[in-house]
Parts: sequence; structure tokens; C-alpha cells
Amino acid sequence: MSDVIPEQYADLLASTALAHIATIGPDGAPQSSPVWFDWDGTFLRFAQVKGYQQKVRNLQREPRVALSIVDPANPYRYLEVRGTVEQIEADPDWAFINAMAKKYLGQDRYPFGKPGDEWVVVVIRPERTTQMG
Amino acid sequence: MSDVIPEQYADLLASTALAHIATIGPDGAPQSSPVWFDWDGTFLRFAQVKGYQQKVRNLQREPRVALSIVDPANPYRYLEVRGTVEQIEADPDWAFINAMAKKYLGQDRYPFGKPGDEWVVVVIRPERTTQMG
Repeated sequence: MSDVIPEQYADLLASTALAHIATIGPDGAPQSSPVWFDWDGTFLRFAQVKGYQQKVRNLQREPRVALSIVDPANPYRYLEVRGTVEQIEADPDWAFINAMAKKYLGQDRYPFGKPGDEWVVVVIRPERTTQMG
Repeated sequence: MSDVIPEQYADLLASTALAHIATIGPDGAPQSSPVWFDWDGTFLRFAQVKGYQQKVRNLQREPRVALSIVDPANPYRYLEVRGTVEQIEADPDWAFINAMAKKYLGQDRYPFGKPGDEWVVVVIRPERTTQMG
């Protein structure tokens, strides 16, 4: 377990809450979007379909990100993870996006994609957190 | 009604969903946190307690922000609003934070504050949106 994440907020990283990820756009302005995420105790990961190349380019240029995750059972409790993109990996057989479909939908295969969609996995190393509640 | 907001996503701005706001910290890295928000058809507003002066200073230095709001009834539908802080106003009689307590809690007075807490209202002008679902 990463020692960056406070023990008493680790449950949020195991939850099926959405994470809202803040990134920096090409003009330096912030962007925010909800994502499904995975946490393996060391890295946070989220999937990005290759059609959204702009987001991938943004992360390559400015790898610093922040994710905020609200407790689904308590809207006054949340964890913010600030970190850096460690790498962006191909997901040629959809292993990761299908695992996310399993986590969030209970389905073995991601049902919303189009055949031929190419996915990548964005791997984030947490560096610090803020939290409330 | 601001013509920046797509008509078919205006319901999200009237909802009691949380908005996750992306801002830029003093080191240029993004930050993300959930907030209660108000929408009057022209401006988005959220409250900030003055103890969190760091966030206010961040917004004064870099007024560009983004907020993402997920439909509470449909996690695949969301609106992202990108905009700029127009002004930061004092809220000496708690009029705004109490209005937010009314919206989100159904209570006339914000119940979590300490006497003497000083609040400000961050006023955001939407400039563009992205959306899904």
C-alpha cells in the first residue's frame, strides 16, 4: 500500500465512486472530467479511448493531475489525490477497460465501445492527498 | 440563460449534484475538490470559507477553472463547464452559504460552520462546455 494514501481514506479508493480528474489543457487552463478508476495499492489507473487523443497529449505535456473522490455514502467526506502520470500504456485486448466494466457494471466486457476502439491506460503515481470528513 | 450552457444539460445546473472544481495551485499543478454550487442563469457560484485562503489566492492568481457535474440519476451523463472567476465577494451575513444549505440540506442556516467563520463567494462566468451522455 502506498504510504501516500491515509489509511482511513483507503476505502474510497476501493469504492465504485467516480473520480473527477483535473488536468491542464493546451492553453494552461484546467479541465475536469469524471472517470472510472482502478487502484492497486501503488498506482491509480484510468482508461482513455484513443479518440480522445487531446487528453492524452495534454497528459504527456503536463503529467501533473489531481483526482477527487467523494464517499458515495457521505457527501461530506472526500479524498483528493494529487500525482503524476507515470506512463500511458496501450490496452490492445481491452483487458483494462473490461476490468473497469467488471468493477463498475458487473459485466465481463465493456458494453459501450465500438469495435476497433483503441484504449490506453493512464497510470498515475500518487504524491500527496488532501481530505475532508 | 447563458447561451454557453447547452439547453439539454441545463437540468444538471439546477440539480443538487456536487460539482468537482479543477483549479491551478501555486506550483501550476491542478487541484480538484467537490463543492456545492449555485447557478443563476448567468454565473456559477460556490462558497469558500476564509480559512482556505490558499484556494482564494490560487483563484486570484489563475482565474481559469473547470467544473464537472455528473447527473445523479445517470452516471454516464455529465457536463463540464470551463470558465473564469469574475469576482470574489464577501458573504458577511452568510446569505450565500445559508442559501446553499437550503439547496443541499433543506436547512435555513448552514449547520457546519463555526461562529466567526468568514465566507466568500466565488463567482464564475462560464465560457464553454464539454458534455457526455
